[in-house]
Amino acid sequence: MDYYKESLKMHEEHRGKMEVASKVKVTNKDDLSTAYTPGVAEPCRKIHENPEDVYKYTNKSNTVAVISDGSAVLGLGNIGGLASIPVMDGKSLLFKEFAGIDAFPVCLETQDVDEIVNIAKNIAPTLGGINLEDIAAPRCFEIERKLQEQVDIPVFHDDQHGTAVVVTAAIMNALKITGKQWKNVKVVINGAGAAGTAIARMLLAAGAGDVIVCDQIGVLAKDDDRLNPAQEELARMTNQNLVRGTLADVMKGADVFVGVSAPRIVNEEMIASMAKDAIVFPMANPEPEIMPDLAKKAGARIVGTGRSDFPNQINNVLAFPGIFKGALEARAKRITEDMKIAAARALADIITEDELCEEYIIPSAFHPGVADAVAEAVAGAWKE
Amino acid sequence: MDYYKESLKMHEEHRGKMEVASKVKVTNKDDLSTAYTPGVAEPCRKIHENPEDVYKYTNKSNTVAVISDGSAVLGLGNIGGLASIPVMDGKSLLFKEFAGIDAFPVCLETQDVDEIVNIAKNIAPTLGGINLEDIAAPRCFEIERKLQEQVDIPVFHDDQHGTAVVVTAAIMNALKITGKQWKNVKVVINGAGAAGTAIARMLLAAGAGDVIVCDQIGVLAKDDDRLNPAQEELARMTNQNLVRGTLADVMKGADVFVGVSAPRIVNEEMIASMAKDAIVFPMANPEPEIMPDLAKKAGARIVGTGRSDFPNQINNVLAFPGIFKGALEARAKRITEDMKIAAARALADIITEDELCEEYIIPSAFHPGVADAVAEAVAGAWKE
Repeated sequence: MDYYKESLKMHEEHRGKMEVASKVKVTNKDDLSTAYTPGVAEPCRKIHENPEDVYKYTNKSNTVAVISDGSAVLGLGNIGGLASIPVMDGKSLLFKEFAGIDAFPVCLETQDVDEIVNIAKNIAPTLGGINLEDIAAPRCFEIERKLQEQVDIPVFHDDQHGTAVVVTAAIMNALKITGKQWKNVKVVINGAGAAGTAIARMLLAAGAGDVIVCDQIGVLAKDDDRLNPAQEELARMTNQNLVRGTLADVMKGADVFVGVSAPRIVNEEMIASMAKDAIVFPMANPEPEIMPDLAKKAGARIVGTGRSDFPNQINNVLAFPGIFKGALEARAKRITEDMKIAAARALADIITEDELCEEYIIPSAFHPGVADAVAEAVAGAWKE
Repeated sequence: MDYYKESLKMHEEHRGKMEVASKVKVTNKDDLSTAYTPGVAEPCRKIHENPEDVYKYTNKSNTVAVISDGSAVLGLGNIGGLASIPVMDGKSLLFKEFAGIDAFPVCLETQDVDEIVNIAKNIAPTLGGINLEDIAAPRCFEIERKLQEQVDIPVFHDDQHGTAVVVTAAIMNALKITGKQWKNVKVVINGAGAAGTAIARMLLAAGAGDVIVCDQIGVLAKDDDRLNPAQEELARMTNQNLVRGTLADVMKGADVFVGVSAPRIVNEEMIASMAKDAIVFPMANPEPEIMPDLAKKAGARIVGTGRSDFPNQINNVLAFPGIFKGALEARAKRITEDMKIAAARALADIITEDELCEEYIIPSAFHPGVADAVAEAVAGAWKE
């Protein structure tokens, strides 16, 4: 199936993928006077008196904005807000289809950090949550942090945390199979962008013993004076032994490899140099860091990619619908580390002990009940 | 029917009145790969190559944001963005129900002119048009002007122009009944806010011979040094004879009275002092400047109000759905005076010569074909 061609056809035929729909009908004068003036003044008055009533009389608790500046869209790079619309519209579609959430795309003209924060903050009254999407690192970190400080609804950069949650869930299950313990595990992450940074943080929060991050300048180490502020912060948390060298150097003896970088930069020799029962997630899209069959042949025990045509697809759609659903239900003010860990565990636990095997460590996007299981865990973690 | 109570019930039961709906379904891997990655990259690439393709592959051409800062909501005043949500949600509902347009509320935290302009400009990529709503005068004028200068989609402050279009249509038909000519008509408008200002401008554009505007400081005249810039501009266009005095003074001999001010500030004597066949539109909401039966008793020949429980309801819902529909269809870059006049004429012409009478100068909101007739006229006027 030629997805590019099909997608173009779908988009042209339907003019995008989402529309707005009425939950009430307006067919006569009474409807009009109830849904609009004069009746509508009453819920306005109630909310004005008690701002919390906005949850009672509006759709705030089920509304999410998918905000992007189009600076890091799929593998297409910085194509800008306008050209990013089909992706944000698609993300909104997944929110609706997988979690019943009313999401709409906000694709921005500007790529300025403070402008983006200011816009998102100012449009927040109608929103129950904000999903940041396809914003380039390191700006994405600053935008998320500043925005979350200014609003009391969850702000979630899915390219970071959604990916991190699914990777963590996959590693949780892979560790069950290999019998390894988090605290003894050495993880190498290649790519220090949005996803790589969030994965490193989350694996540390999950208890990973040693996490090493590489990017184009090599292994990040806190005593390296070439780092930018975002890299510095990441380096302070990782690579405690201050090892240096190339990706190939640090992959020697590693238990887990996570690639969020570029096609074909890992070879069979590098995989073969890893520890026994190696767990390998080359997730570059559409072409992974190493193809799964090659990784397997070189000795990897468990392999997962971003692709749907191989086993163990590490797919964000497993996480973000349920995470937002749970956060909205619990009326959480932010998404905490505990909520993400709870989401990862819920996702991992969907696969029963009997089902769990090398080729099945993470459920399919269409596995029934995924979003609800994740939502329940996330809501529970917030309430704690 | 207690609309306040019913409205509260409706809002609580449905949590607002609008939701987001999918135009395509996502039930399997192929759907996901077509609607989202990898397929969705293709429409993104097309739009990146040719920005006009955004109209081909997204819902831009049918999407309108209803933007408010909540500074002048119904008769409730400055209740802020949050408390204004039920109204903007209701406006979105009317867009959908009356014109099939996908509108969504953007209720802002800020009430700063430049911030509002900046936000609206920056979220414009997904939008085919912008409906400004319930923003207080004189800020609304500046916001609309500045925003329209910066975007190439129509910006329309409905409290101004929607009202003006319907009033103009009603006067067009009232003139037919009374046999008066635009050029000989003296109009008195009470209220120099958003609606009053726009009505004055539009009636002049329609050819009204003499337009006089009053507000709290009395009759606006260009040689009055107490005027603010917005009043000054309005005064320059109106009251060419530089008359002075009270509302009662200028109503003497007037052919048309338009009230967009406050309850009960017009009495029977003032109506009786008007010219023969007086046309009286006391539109203060919910209680008019003078009740229709009193105005009639005092000698007014034609009376219209904002209320649905009297004949001749001057209702914005007659105008904005069709105006946006026409502008979106024609892919207009703005709403011109000609387009508004065309809309008013189309609206007036819905009532046939046979039907036209004192009690029926303007169609009901539920008259079939209103939005389409207005849309066609508006699109035609843009194309000219």
